[in-house]
Amino acid sequence: MTPEEFRSAGHLLVDWIADHRARVPDLPVAARVKPGDVAAALAERAPETPEPVEAVLADLEDVVVHGITQTQSPHFFGWFPSNASLASVLGDIASSGLGALGITWQSAPALTEVEQVVVEWLRRLTGLSPAWHGAIQDTASTGTLVALIAARERATGYAAARGGLQAEPEPLVVYTSPHAHSSVAKAVLLAGFGSENLRYVEADPLTRALRPEALARAMDADRLTGRRPAAVVLSVGTTGTTAVDPIAEVLPIAARHGAWVHVDAAMAGSALLLPEMRHLVAGIEGTRDVGGSAAVPGADSLVWNPHKWMGTILDCSLLYVRDRDHLVRVMSTNPSYLRSAVDGDVVQYKDWGIPLGRRFRALKLWFHLRLDGVEAIRARLRRDLANARRLAEMVAAEPDWRVVAPVTLQTVCLRHEPPALPDEALDAHTLAWASAVNDGGRAFVTPALLDGRWMVRISVGAETTEQTDVDALWAVLRSTAAAVGS
Amino acid sequence: MTPEEFRSAGHLLVDWIADHRARVPDLPVAARVKPGDVAAALAERAPETPEPVEAVLADLEDVVVHGITQTQSPHFFGWFPSNASLASVLGDIASSGLGALGITWQSAPALTEVEQVVVEWLRRLTGLSPAWHGAIQDTASTGTLVALIAARERATGYAAARGGLQAEPEPLVVYTSPHAHSSVAKAVLLAGFGSENLRYVEADPLTRALRPEALARAMDADRLTGRRPAAVVLSVGTTGTTAVDPIAEVLPIAARHGAWVHVDAAMAGSALLLPEMRHLVAGIEGTRDVGGSAAVPGADSLVWNPHKWMGTILDCSLLYVRDRDHLVRVMSTNPSYLRSAVDGDVVQYKDWGIPLGRRFRALKLWFHLRLDGVEAIRARLRRDLANARRLAEMVAAEPDWRVVAPVTLQTVCLRHEPPALPDEALDAHTLAWASAVNDGGRAFVTPALLDGRWMVRISVGAETTEQTDVDALWAVLRSTAAAVGS
Repeated sequence: MTPEEFRSAGHLLVDWIADHRARVPDLPVAARVKPGDVAAALAERAPETPEPVEAVLADLEDVVVHGITQTQSPHFFGWFPSNASLASVLGDIASSGLGALGITWQSAPALTEVEQVVVEWLRRLTGLSPAWHGAIQDTASTGTLVALIAARERATGYAAARGGLQAEPEPLVVYTSPHAHSSVAKAVLLAGFGSENLRYVEADPLTRALRPEALARAMDADRLTGRRPAAVVLSVGTTGTTAVDPIAEVLPIAARHGAWVHVDAAMAGSALLLPEMRHLVAGIEGTRDVGGSAAVPGADSLVWNPHKWMGTILDCSLLYVRDRDHLVRVMSTNPSYLRSAVDGDVVQYKDWGIPLGRRFRALKLWFHLRLDGVEAIRARLRRDLANARRLAEMVAAEPDWRVVAPVTLQTVCLRHEPPALPDEALDAHTLAWASAVNDGGRAFVTPALLDGRWMVRISVGAETTEQTDVDALWAVLRSTAAAVGS
Repeated sequence: MTPEEFRSAGHLLVDWIADHRARVPDLPVAARVKPGDVAAALAERAPETPEPVEAVLADLEDVVVHGITQTQSPHFFGWFPSNASLASVLGDIASSGLGALGITWQSAPALTEVEQVVVEWLRRLTGLSPAWHGAIQDTASTGTLVALIAARERATGYAAARGGLQAEPEPLVVYTSPHAHSSVAKAVLLAGFGSENLRYVEADPLTRALRPEALARAMDADRLTGRRPAAVVLSVGTTGTTAVDPIAEVLPIAARHGAWVHVDAAMAGSALLLPEMRHLVAGIEGTRDVGGSAAVPGADSLVWNPHKWMGTILDCSLLYVRDRDHLVRVMSTNPSYLRSAVDGDVVQYKDWGIPLGRRFRALKLWFHLRLDGVEAIRARLRRDLANARRLAEMVAAEPDWRVVAPVTLQTVCLRHEPPALPDEALDAHTLAWASAVNDGGRAFVTPALLDGRWMVRISVGAETTEQTDVDALWAVLRSTAAAVGS
């Protein structure tokens, strides 16, 4: 395809995207296809000769659009927000158009240095101290895996450079809350620690926050039996209920054992743009004694996803670490064909994560922050917090409805509890009305287990969700639950 | 940003991209900035209020463009091709515009099923049997890490579900060629095997292919000392010289030890679109005895990058495995908030790799193959092979120039060897003329070490590189080497 052919097709596509985004509020929110429907509509083999762009756009319209759940809809309240702000989409388009290859600084200095600049912008915006150094990863799952591999190597004094994990006599243990995201257990397994060395530490039954005293007991018990506490993964905004583990109280406990502390703030990181929400990570910098040296060291790593609530299109996750040299030592490679004269003077992001080749993802953050401006992003986040509080108040005030977890962020966990329903019937009722809401197409919500019972998560924060949309959702929830229950 | 604001900015951006791509052939190929230049040109803090799109596009033009090495230039012969065909760029733009969230089948059935369809298209196109099942990963580095974790878990009977790698008494060993890509060693270290358990098996000094008899000896020796051969990583197209390890001869050796065989065809996978090049992976399916059962099992996993020579824009790497159930068992997670009624009937790509959230990357393959058609892609690959052979012949015919490795694909490794230069002076000369070529801006080449001496890799295969461009390169090489040497 020539640049001129691209120009004309690109204009068609931009118009298609603008039209599509404009009608998203009117589309059913949940994907409306059965397993296999999409695949059945596509050709079995790739075409030998070119098809016209119109044919491909027609399939995009006729096959693809109804085959995705509209996370950009103002009526989307599922999982967590997955905002693809159009300002960030422009940055993503610029990245694709440039076709840069990020393997070393030399291959694309701008790809590296725009990334350095924007991760520093976001460090300042989220109130982290200059002790933190960041890089863009694809997702928090990957960031957490990288952090746990770094923790493993710190605990073993770089066993990777010797006989690996198998040569280490003391089993390494990782601690987290039972409410931690599934990616934590996945990272523990992938990094080789083993399921038996993952401790789910007791959480508070009301706040669902990890209990520091339970952590301390678990770590001491492992020490006594010849195990080595290697890492603690704290959640700031759990996926179930946005519970917040107490960083300040955990850091000194972890420090006693030299354990790495990783903070998974995938969701709540966006909230840190609001100074009034920084209590969520209180203590993350550690404390200093009078002489200025660390009395309690700060957390070691933090991951958060601008691609969630803040709205820089997926995939855009930020991993910050305090000990940059350690991370680079764990992740680095240096074959001759990637060397250049300036290697000592520049950042090589290949040594901050798993992939060698990287897209120019910094552009989407750069475009997003510049085209929208930080003020507007903060205002939107505050709007969502207020809308979630408003919804929680309406739910709490309504007979037979209950808010089942503290509202710490923008997610409201609730249940419709008609009188005299036994637990199992209540579960069936909850799943039934949640399904009916999603099938209705006017809203999308997520059922999830909490303390062994189903509840429904309402995660406010799609970019276009206004107060009126939350009010409309509440009407849909009530009428649907009433209809299902009758 | 509203859809209408996006529309007008998007049209500006599409025009900018088309104009940019049209002038790429005239730009200096290597990035023309010093460390820190790009960062110094950018604001120190994110703006509070929105900037006009024109300001951001102006920075793209004035700061970013000269800060990237133009891998899309017809004069780019560095590393490996990193083609971002404009047809695939359109697919990437469609993906960004849709803003779909790929976490489960339910979140975006089309994202999952278009991916199923296109990985199947490419399976057929590359001549792999239906025994292979694929998924898109970001890069071959990640694909190789996933494969080695799968190998680790097969060798240990799922130690991850028990005490992890530390609880396994027999050290697990991974084998590869000294010419393997740096990502292989990185994956071995990240997966926890440890550097001492990575064996670089002797390669043929002429072809640089791994020697099967040396592999057999190394595996037997490890067995005798209580170690367990867990995996062999074969390279089909090494980064240095595009050497090809002998799959057919290695498979029965690996099978004797039950070792996983992973094939890194990151570069050469594109060549498999040409039936006449499938000898590169001869034997990969294994052999069957008369009864139809496997006499020699096939390789276990294969990774290749459409984002290299084939030209589907980064990041687009394909990982195929034979035992899909094993991969899924190793990589799966199933928290309540991701469950749905159709889980048993659908593919969940979150369980095929590291990240939970995935972009709609299948669209770029879908657009690329449909808008360009396979015939044209094959013709381009054949053009590049012919151009590389032509260059190699010209080099071989020229006094004082030497082709230093067999030309198995589209990469020519060469040296200018003026008479009577001692080895160290020759190294200095090689690096000097390669630097001069890159500084001149009319071509970009990569110096690399081969057998401890510097040579220069000419990797033909940018999408726009025609025979005249290769001839022009050859003129630049000769005149530059002559000028540097005089």
